[in-house]
Amino acid sequence: MVEIIKKKRDGEVLTDGEIKQVISGFVAGTIPDYQVSAWLMAIFFQGMNDQETAALTDAMMRSGDLIDLSEIPGIKVDKHSTGGVGDKTTLVLGPLVASAGVPLVKMSGRGLGHTGGTLDKLEAIPGFDVEMTAREFVEQVKKYGIAICSQNEKLVPADKKLYALRDVTGTVDNISLIASSVMSKKLACGADAIVIDLKVGDGAFIKTIGDAEKLAAIMISTARRMGRQLTAVITGMEEPLGHAIGNALEVREAIDTLRGHGPADLTNLCLELGGHMLVLAGRCHTMEEGRDLLRQSIENGSAFNKFCELVKIQGGDADYVTHPQKLALSGHVYEYKSSKRGYISHLGAMDIGLASAKLGAGRETKESTIDLGAGIILTKKVGEWVEVGDTLAVLYAADAALFAKAEEYLREAWTFSESCPEKMPLILKVMS
Amino acid sequence: MVEIIKKKRDGEVLTDGEIKQVISGFVAGTIPDYQVSAWLMAIFFQGMNDQETAALTDAMMRSGDLIDLSEIPGIKVDKHSTGGVGDKTTLVLGPLVASAGVPLVKMSGRGLGHTGGTLDKLEAIPGFDVEMTAREFVEQVKKYGIAICSQNEKLVPADKKLYALRDVTGTVDNISLIASSVMSKKLACGADAIVIDLKVGDGAFIKTIGDAEKLAAIMISTARRMGRQLTAVITGMEEPLGHAIGNALEVREAIDTLRGHGPADLTNLCLELGGHMLVLAGRCHTMEEGRDLLRQSIENGSAFNKFCELVKIQGGDADYVTHPQKLALSGHVYEYKSSKRGYISHLGAMDIGLASAKLGAGRETKESTIDLGAGIILTKKVGEWVEVGDTLAVLYAADAALFAKAEEYLREAWTFSESCPEKMPLILKVMS
Repeated sequence: MVEIIKKKRDGEVLTDGEIKQVISGFVAGTIPDYQVSAWLMAIFFQGMNDQETAALTDAMMRSGDLIDLSEIPGIKVDKHSTGGVGDKTTLVLGPLVASAGVPLVKMSGRGLGHTGGTLDKLEAIPGFDVEMTAREFVEQVKKYGIAICSQNEKLVPADKKLYALRDVTGTVDNISLIASSVMSKKLACGADAIVIDLKVGDGAFIKTIGDAEKLAAIMISTARRMGRQLTAVITGMEEPLGHAIGNALEVREAIDTLRGHGPADLTNLCLELGGHMLVLAGRCHTMEEGRDLLRQSIENGSAFNKFCELVKIQGGDADYVTHPQKLALSGHVYEYKSSKRGYISHLGAMDIGLASAKLGAGRETKESTIDLGAGIILTKKVGEWVEVGDTLAVLYAADAALFAKAEEYLREAWTFSESCPEKMPLILKVMS
Repeated sequence: MVEIIKKKRDGEVLTDGEIKQVISGFVAGTIPDYQVSAWLMAIFFQGMNDQETAALTDAMMRSGDLIDLSEIPGIKVDKHSTGGVGDKTTLVLGPLVASAGVPLVKMSGRGLGHTGGTLDKLEAIPGFDVEMTAREFVEQVKKYGIAICSQNEKLVPADKKLYALRDVTGTVDNISLIASSVMSKKLACGADAIVIDLKVGDGAFIKTIGDAEKLAAIMISTARRMGRQLTAVITGMEEPLGHAIGNALEVREAIDTLRGHGPADLTNLCLELGGHMLVLAGRCHTMEEGRDLLRQSIENGSAFNKFCELVKIQGGDADYVTHPQKLALSGHVYEYKSSKRGYISHLGAMDIGLASAKLGAGRETKESTIDLGAGIILTKKVGEWVEVGDTLAVLYAADAALFAKAEEYLREAWTFSESCPEKMPLILKVMS
């Protein structure tokens, strides 16, 4: 191991075998943490080339169980978002794509810090069960064309262990380590093709388009070297997506969107990502066709019906989907009003995400419990005109004392200008 | 700690307090190894400036006991060698300098790999005891002007722990880490001034004069920032020093040198290093005066007598010093002969050191036991003419089967040329 550390330290390229040796030794406990962390820091400085990144992804992917989707006919497409604020895309996209005839296999995560997680959102629907075995997962996709569940503990144990070490040793911010962490999990889930939503901006962990492009390039190269297809969609995350932030609130907005009257940004993003998924799955030849198919699924109700079906299969009460006003919100409501007038020139997704977490909708640590009914409805977003006293947001919390904590972030969230600001496009770039 | 790792990773300068926090946390066990190793790798890439190196040296020095030499009058001078093959300098220099009236305080180490250690060499003299308490150490120097003992376990525990971690994480080769390791140990021993013999070449861990100059510069700066004086003498270690390699053999050669008929290179090196020690101690004003004083000590027998006295005080049998032929050598003797003719153009110190270790004179690991009577006498060195069949070296071992193992290295050790090679000077540069 010392020789492998020195080799990377000195800028040499590691062989597939050496990388595999590090990961398997680390998982087995025969290579100690202190050697792995020195190796990670050497990677931080020297980087990894495309072949090394693919080898690392492969070694991590094979550190645990692999899900075999081969008995499901057709090209299986997975979707991943690098995380943002108000990102309820999976809730819409899953049923939407499945209703258009493309099987959706999706293992999701929980919220942490300023971002939410799909599993928490789904659990806002009473009865919805996100736990299933790999066998149940495959059977459900075969039968219904859709399953959304939590990532199996037996999948990619190397990633969990390696990420925990990176987190405490200053070695998170390396493009190859980030790419291999995301990709190993996606690939272990067995999909043939993947659409990645790379979010860029205030509320995302990627701050510049340049960084997103680099990450996209290495993910595409990694997928190709491992015989899979990948399309990366780089999207803006300056302001939150849609108007709702918080678990039950976001389910309500997802249902609105599936019914055809959701916010424009969320709807467009779902049509864009879904269109790429349909193209990758061979369901259609062009993005235009793909978007049309998805619009039809919304208009004829099949996307909404697929969501109702998904909820029922996974133990949820579909009555809450057909009557989303029944989804419980937290008891205390507060209208946050503007002290300024002007056009909203910026609405910081990070501040909104942190404010929502303070209201109870998010987790500070993995062990925190969350209030599924808490959150924020943004009534004014970038480009809108605001008078003093206008309501900027409606806040929901179980305890009125939490409003003051959230306000500390909200005060920083809105920026105003005298002229109408130019709005940044939501879809910044597509790479494949 | 994560913030401190990231700060160094991003090329920022750490404060004295941050460095102290890392070292004290590491020694106390509150900062885990995996964070320290990532930090060390970040230092490998980003380096440390002079102030950071001094702060690290200070923090390490204070991690354990400090020896207080203040009750010994005058300027106390220590000497350190970065290690080579056949380097019995301390055995000569200690009594030599002490006999010239400068108190010598010296804590030494043991041999490892291709290099020998002063403690092992002294233990070749029956009865010689290298263990003493800090109190006994100070009392002995006060009374006799000299003590050579093993480094107290309570001194600089941070260095022992940090070096063990560096050794297995590819973070040994950094000039600030090397300098702080050497300097913290020297400074904890309480000396006011230090002469460092920085060995460069085949048998040394520093391979180029440029690297030695950089290391010397940072050591001088560190010493100055900590209120001590330091002179660095950069010396060649292409071929072994003197003719003897192996513990009892080296004691014999040291005694020869103290009696005035040692090899020229060893004698000159001792006069050079000793001269600087005398100047630093204020015993004389110029190097010329210093060398003259030391030559007199050899000629009038006082240096030899001081060695006899040292041996007696530390429990050794001085009869072995006055009759060094009594120092036991290993039972099997083998003359290694030349298969070529020509001038010796190179004699690799590393190969000779490894051959000597194979004969039993060295340790492969810290736990290995050594044969104090084993080793090599080089009968031909660089610049000498050799005929086919001439004896190049005489080998001593407890088991004749070891000769074949040593020969594997010896075959590579000598290089011949047709014309007489230019000999590299022994003293390459002096910095202070």
